[in-house]
Amino acid sequence: MGPEEFRAAGHELIDWIADYRARIPELPVQAQVGPGEVAGQLPKNAPEEAEPFARLLADLDAIVVPGVTQVQHPRYFGWFPSNATLSSALGDLATAGLGALGITWQSAPALTEVEEVVVEWLRELTALPESWKGVIQDTASTACLVALLAARERATDYSEARGGLQAESTPLTVYTTEHAHSSIAKAVALAGYGRDNLRLVGVDPVTYAMRPEALAEAVEADVAAGRRPAAVVVNVGTTGTTAVDPLAQIVPLAQRYGMWVHVDAAMAGSALLLPEMRWLVEGVEGADSLCWNPHKWLGTVLDCSLLYVADPAHLIRVMSTNPSYLRSGVDGEVTQYKDWGIPLGRRFRALKLWFVLLDEGVAAIRTRVRRDLENAQWLAGEIEAAPDWQVVAPVTLQTVCIRHVPVDLVEPAISAKNLAIAHHINRMGHAYLTPSLLDGRQILRISIGAERTERVHVAALWGALRAAAATV
Amino acid sequence: MGPEEFRAAGHELIDWIADYRARIPELPVQAQVGPGEVAGQLPKNAPEEAEPFARLLADLDAIVVPGVTQVQHPRYFGWFPSNATLSSALGDLATAGLGALGITWQSAPALTEVEEVVVEWLRELTALPESWKGVIQDTASTACLVALLAARERATDYSEARGGLQAESTPLTVYTTEHAHSSIAKAVALAGYGRDNLRLVGVDPVTYAMRPEALAEAVEADVAAGRRPAAVVVNVGTTGTTAVDPLAQIVPLAQRYGMWVHVDAAMAGSALLLPEMRWLVEGVEGADSLCWNPHKWLGTVLDCSLLYVADPAHLIRVMSTNPSYLRSGVDGEVTQYKDWGIPLGRRFRALKLWFVLLDEGVAAIRTRVRRDLENAQWLAGEIEAAPDWQVVAPVTLQTVCIRHVPVDLVEPAISAKNLAIAHHINRMGHAYLTPSLLDGRQILRISIGAERTERVHVAALWGALRAAAATV
Repeated sequence: MGPEEFRAAGHELIDWIADYRARIPELPVQAQVGPGEVAGQLPKNAPEEAEPFARLLADLDAIVVPGVTQVQHPRYFGWFPSNATLSSALGDLATAGLGALGITWQSAPALTEVEEVVVEWLRELTALPESWKGVIQDTASTACLVALLAARERATDYSEARGGLQAESTPLTVYTTEHAHSSIAKAVALAGYGRDNLRLVGVDPVTYAMRPEALAEAVEADVAAGRRPAAVVVNVGTTGTTAVDPLAQIVPLAQRYGMWVHVDAAMAGSALLLPEMRWLVEGVEGADSLCWNPHKWLGTVLDCSLLYVADPAHLIRVMSTNPSYLRSGVDGEVTQYKDWGIPLGRRFRALKLWFVLLDEGVAAIRTRVRRDLENAQWLAGEIEAAPDWQVVAPVTLQTVCIRHVPVDLVEPAISAKNLAIAHHINRMGHAYLTPSLLDGRQILRISIGAERTERVHVAALWGALRAAAATV
Repeated sequence: MGPEEFRAAGHELIDWIADYRARIPELPVQAQVGPGEVAGQLPKNAPEEAEPFARLLADLDAIVVPGVTQVQHPRYFGWFPSNATLSSALGDLATAGLGALGITWQSAPALTEVEEVVVEWLRELTALPESWKGVIQDTASTACLVALLAARERATDYSEARGGLQAESTPLTVYTTEHAHSSIAKAVALAGYGRDNLRLVGVDPVTYAMRPEALAEAVEADVAAGRRPAAVVVNVGTTGTTAVDPLAQIVPLAQRYGMWVHVDAAMAGSALLLPEMRWLVEGVEGADSLCWNPHKWLGTVLDCSLLYVADPAHLIRVMSTNPSYLRSGVDGEVTQYKDWGIPLGRRFRALKLWFVLLDEGVAAIRTRVRRDLENAQWLAGEIEAAPDWQVVAPVTLQTVCIRHVPVDLVEPAISAKNLAIAHHINRMGHAYLTPSLLDGRQILRISIGAERTERVHVAALWGALRAAAATV
């Protein structure tokens, strides 16, 4: 495809996207297809000859759109927000249009330096320590793996450069809570610590936040048994209930034992744009790394996760490679982001962040985040005031965890009823929320924060919940 | 930004990209900026208020374009091709426009199923074993790490589920050659094997391919010393010279010792579309995994790397997570790609592959790949015929490694002269090639295969090389 064919097809696709985004509110939120239904509509083989571009657009309409859950829908309350703002979509288009290759500073100086600048803008906006440096990773899963690799190498004085973790004699242990994101246990497994060396520290029964005294006990028991505590993953906004582990109390303990402190603020990070929410990460200056995802609440289309570290030199030593075909005369003067993560080749992801910040402006983003926090408090208030409904976890951010508790039911009938409510609403397609488990019981998890979600949409969900409770 | 503002700005950006792509041939290939020059043009802080979209386009022109090496340029011969075809840019735009969230099959069935279908199309097109299954990863670096984690877990019978690699008593070893990509040694380090347990097996002095007898010796020595050979990374098209390790001879040896065979065909994979190039991976049916990058030669904008495995159930067991908020009623019937790699959240990357295949058609892609192979042979012929010039490695794919060897010079003056030639050409901006080292001596590495590179551009480089040799 040459530039002029691209121009014609590109205008068509832009119009298609604008029309699609405009009609999302009329689409069912949950994809209504069954397993294999999408694949069954595609040919068995790739085409030998080119097909007209109109055919691609028709396939997008007929096959792809009905096959995705509409997370840009104003009545999407599932998992966490996954805002792909149209500003960020344009930034992403600029990335593809430029087609730059991010392997070294030399291959695309702007790819590196715009990333450095934008990541620094966001550090300042979220009031993270001035000396910290950041990098864009794909997801918080990868960022956590990178942090736990850095922790492993600090604890073993760079075992990777010698016989590896397999040659170490003192077992390393990692600490978090059972409410940590599933990627934490996965990172522990992949980094070679072994799941037996992951400690799920006890939480407060009301807030679901890590109990520092439970952490102290677990660490001391391991030390007494001859193990070496290597890292603690502090959850600031858990996936289940957005619980906030007390970072300021955890840090001194971690420092006493030389543990790496990684803060997983994947969802909560956007809230740090608000001065009134900075309490979430009080004590962060004593941590070693923090990650949050602009591809969630902030609005940068997947994938875009920020990893900040207190000691970039250490991270670089763990991750660096320096083959001859990648050396250049300026190596000492520039940042080589290949040495800050796993992939060598990197996409120009900073553009989508840049476009969002310039096109929306920080003030408008703060307003949107505050809107969502207020909507969550409003919904929690409505539910608290309603008979037969409970808010089952503190509403710290934009996620409201609730249960329908009819007086005439007991467990497990209450759990079954709540699951039925979620399935009914999701199947109807008018709104989408995530059924989840808390303390072994079924709950309804309402995560507010889609870009287009206003109070009226939250109120509509609340109406749908009551209607479903009366129906199922 | 709402749909109508997006429509207006989107049309502007499409035109900007079309114009930019059309004028690339007039731009210097190598970015002509120094360290800090891009960053110095950006404001110190993010803007509180939104800026006009025209400002973003102006910044792209003034700051970003001069700040990237133009790898889409027809006279780009550096590193490896990094073709961001305009078809794939549109596929990528569709991805951003849809804004789908790939965390489970349920969150976006089409994201999973289009990926399954397209990856299967490419398996068939490249004649990989019918029973193999594939997944899109970001890069070959990550794919290799995933393969070496899978190898580690097979060798230790899933140590990750117990005490981890650190609890294993038999040291695991990994084999490749010194010509392997830098990401292999990095993956060995990150997976916890330790660099001391990476064996760089000897290569043939002419072809730079792994010598199977050297591999056998290394493996036997490790076994005799009580170590456990866990994996061999077979390079099909090395980064330095596109050397091809003899897979068919390596596989039986690996099978005898239960070693995982990972084939790194990051660059060469696109050549497997040509039946006459299938010899590259002869014996692949005995391997365990293979990775290649459509974001190189094929033309899919970064990042898009295909990882195929012979035993997906094993990979899933190594990578799986299953928290309550991600469970659904169809889990047993569908593919959950979150369990095939490191990140949970996945971008709808299959669309850009789909767009390239449908918009170009396989026949046209094959023609382009053959054109590049023929251009490489033509250039090699020209150089072989020229006095004072040598082709220093077999031209197997589209990369030609050469040296200028004036009769009046000896080492290290010859190396210095070759480096000066590369720097002169790159600084002039008319073409770009990578200076590299081979057997400790400076060489010129000419990697053909940018989408717009025709014979005339290769001839122009050859002219520039001779002119530079006479000048510097």
